[in-house]
Amino acid sequence: MKRTARLLDSIGRGGQPQARRTSPSGVSVFSGIQPTGVPHLGNYLGALRQWVGIQDNSPKSARLTFCIVDLHAITQPQEVEQLRKRKMELLATLLAIGLDPRRCTIFEQSRVPAHSELMWILSCFAPMGRLNRMTQWKSKLGVSSDQDALGERPATAGLKLGLFSYPVLQAADILIHKATHVPVGEDQAQHLELTREVASSFNKAFGKDILKLPITLLCTTPSAYATPAKRIMSLKDPTQKMSKSAADPASCILLTDSPREIHDKLRRAVTDSVTGPPTYDVQKRPGVSNLIEILAHIRRQQDFDNVARDVSDLSLKAFKDLVADTISEHLEPIRDEYEKIIAESNREVLRFVASEGGRKARESAEETLAEVKEAVGI
Amino acid sequence: MKRTARLLDSIGRGGQPQARRTSPSGVSVFSGIQPTGVPHLGNYLGALRQWVGIQDNSPKSARLTFCIVDLHAITQPQEVEQLRKRKMELLATLLAIGLDPRRCTIFEQSRVPAHSELMWILSCFAPMGRLNRMTQWKSKLGVSSDQDALGERPATAGLKLGLFSYPVLQAADILIHKATHVPVGEDQAQHLELTREVASSFNKAFGKDILKLPITLLCTTPSAYATPAKRIMSLKDPTQKMSKSAADPASCILLTDSPREIHDKLRRAVTDSVTGPPTYDVQKRPGVSNLIEILAHIRRQQDFDNVARDVSDLSLKAFKDLVADTISEHLEPIRDEYEKIIAESNREVLRFVASEGGRKARESAEETLAEVKEAVGI
Repeated sequence: MKRTARLLDSIGRGGQPQARRTSPSGVSVFSGIQPTGVPHLGNYLGALRQWVGIQDNSPKSARLTFCIVDLHAITQPQEVEQLRKRKMELLATLLAIGLDPRRCTIFEQSRVPAHSELMWILSCFAPMGRLNRMTQWKSKLGVSSDQDALGERPATAGLKLGLFSYPVLQAADILIHKATHVPVGEDQAQHLELTREVASSFNKAFGKDILKLPITLLCTTPSAYATPAKRIMSLKDPTQKMSKSAADPASCILLTDSPREIHDKLRRAVTDSVTGPPTYDVQKRPGVSNLIEILAHIRRQQDFDNVARDVSDLSLKAFKDLVADTISEHLEPIRDEYEKIIAESNREVLRFVASEGGRKARESAEETLAEVKEAVGI
Repeated sequence: MKRTARLLDSIGRGGQPQARRTSPSGVSVFSGIQPTGVPHLGNYLGALRQWVGIQDNSPKSARLTFCIVDLHAITQPQEVEQLRKRKMELLATLLAIGLDPRRCTIFEQSRVPAHSELMWILSCFAPMGRLNRMTQWKSKLGVSSDQDALGERPATAGLKLGLFSYPVLQAADILIHKATHVPVGEDQAQHLELTREVASSFNKAFGKDILKLPITLLCTTPSAYATPAKRIMSLKDPTQKMSKSAADPASCILLTDSPREIHDKLRRAVTDSVTGPPTYDVQKRPGVSNLIEILAHIRRQQDFDNVARDVSDLSLKAFKDLVADTISEHLEPIRDEYEKIIAESNREVLRFVASEGGRKARESAEETLAEVKEAVGI
């Protein structure tokens, strides 16, 4: 593909521009993704395609920063070699879907010390009681939402400081890059709220607007940038979100799946007890409805009932084939790009992209950190 | 003084050696002190004189690292300009008492990002329940030792994550420099225990002895290095530790106090309701006993009763004069050195010492951090 060739070529020649810290438009977009390797269709339709949309539609002056949050990943036990590999695969996928490292800063969080440094400083402004009410550590531990971080053992016996204080590192991620707009899923909206509170407390303590209060761009609502998907569900259990950690790999389509794998997974997708041609009814036919939503999202159509009408004369089998074809065609260029980028012969280029992304992110982050340290007196 | 002249001169020429990361003796001493400005006599007799003793008596191969912990200081609200000034004054005092920046690494914590970076990584191994049992946040908040960090408001309503997670940053301080020996006060022994536990968990998780488990050198017990003082008490209230934050400045002797100030403070020192010549009896005469202990420590005598016998034919007034003279004489060279080092004309040199200390500490810390990151897969 011409695009890859141009991209890799220009990167190989060190053709990346400097990070522009001050954006005349004042717009600075930041978002992060966990390094779980090649993302699945849910990640893509729910968030990553929006990132590309932001890149392609925002003014040139807007700063765009996308972070592979490996420091967040280690709040859960990780298999070391796998983590390393997954970071590389994720970076390759971000490039493959069309994020341009000459336009955006794409980087691994652990390459930028200022994230951890600001995290500590913000810790001194983050109330314990507020963190205790966050839901993420509760859902990861599998405890109820009214559970106290220090109460009722053994439910919380395994809770580590890292998982509990995760939202403060996330606040640091956003604030260190002076993000104005943060596209996140609904489950992260609470963390953005905390980010604004902590930034406010900090600014108030020092009587200066040093940290910028970011705006939440909910990925579930249409925005100026894109029309992102609501939750894409598992192909095998439409009551669960699509996830790579599901026991059955057929429940989830990876962006690099071959047409054959995609057709195979679609053929095995759960389509509920109701038979007959496809209709859109989330309550009675969650499986079929999930497939209709996937089809609609890929076609960038917002009215699911309309899409359902379009396919209402198809048998379930023919409908599944149509969905599989649509996914497969959409993913084809991504898959091709990915294969080129991840190839051993391009590995040095990929490493260079990672290292350059880190350098640009450090530049941006260190500028904020210097202002913060100056204000704090350290 | 010749020593200052030589020291400042050689530092001014950039005469500091590189940080030696690998110590053939395997001994690596680390300790930290809060930047509260010029230390008082209690800090000096309780810890700082021991640091100098360590420096002067340890094998050349031993690595010595002393840290001004400004990141810890901000867990409590600080007046910004004062914090900056106090850091400078503390550094000047550390040089004045005889710590040699060519021999030791003396640095400000916030200059070394790896402390915060390792802190985050260790967070993922530090159990919340364990931190909840630590006493330091409780004493700073003034709540009872069985208080829960998330329980019984409003007692803990103001508790911030920074104060709660402080011991994990302290663990990072120690572990990032691969300290083998850590001189601390009794109140910090609990934190050293946690440091060893977190390091063990980390090493176990990755099946390698990456982090070194440090040994506690209690400053209250004689060691191979020095005979440090037990708690030096306030001159105005011998039931309280000597502290700069006490309401009455006469309760505390600063290392830079003039002979006149020292005599004045001693004259006003509380000497209990019992009158008559000095005797050593901590229960009945805590004020006089505190002065006897100060005298003993300065003279490097360990038997307080012996010292008491020496002064038993003095009136209380004459005894106080003797203590004042002894302190004053001991502090004279320190005071002289301090005045020279802190002088505006030497300010550039002091800044250079701070910056060089930071550089050496970063070198040492980044080596450990690289090993840690490699192990973790980030």
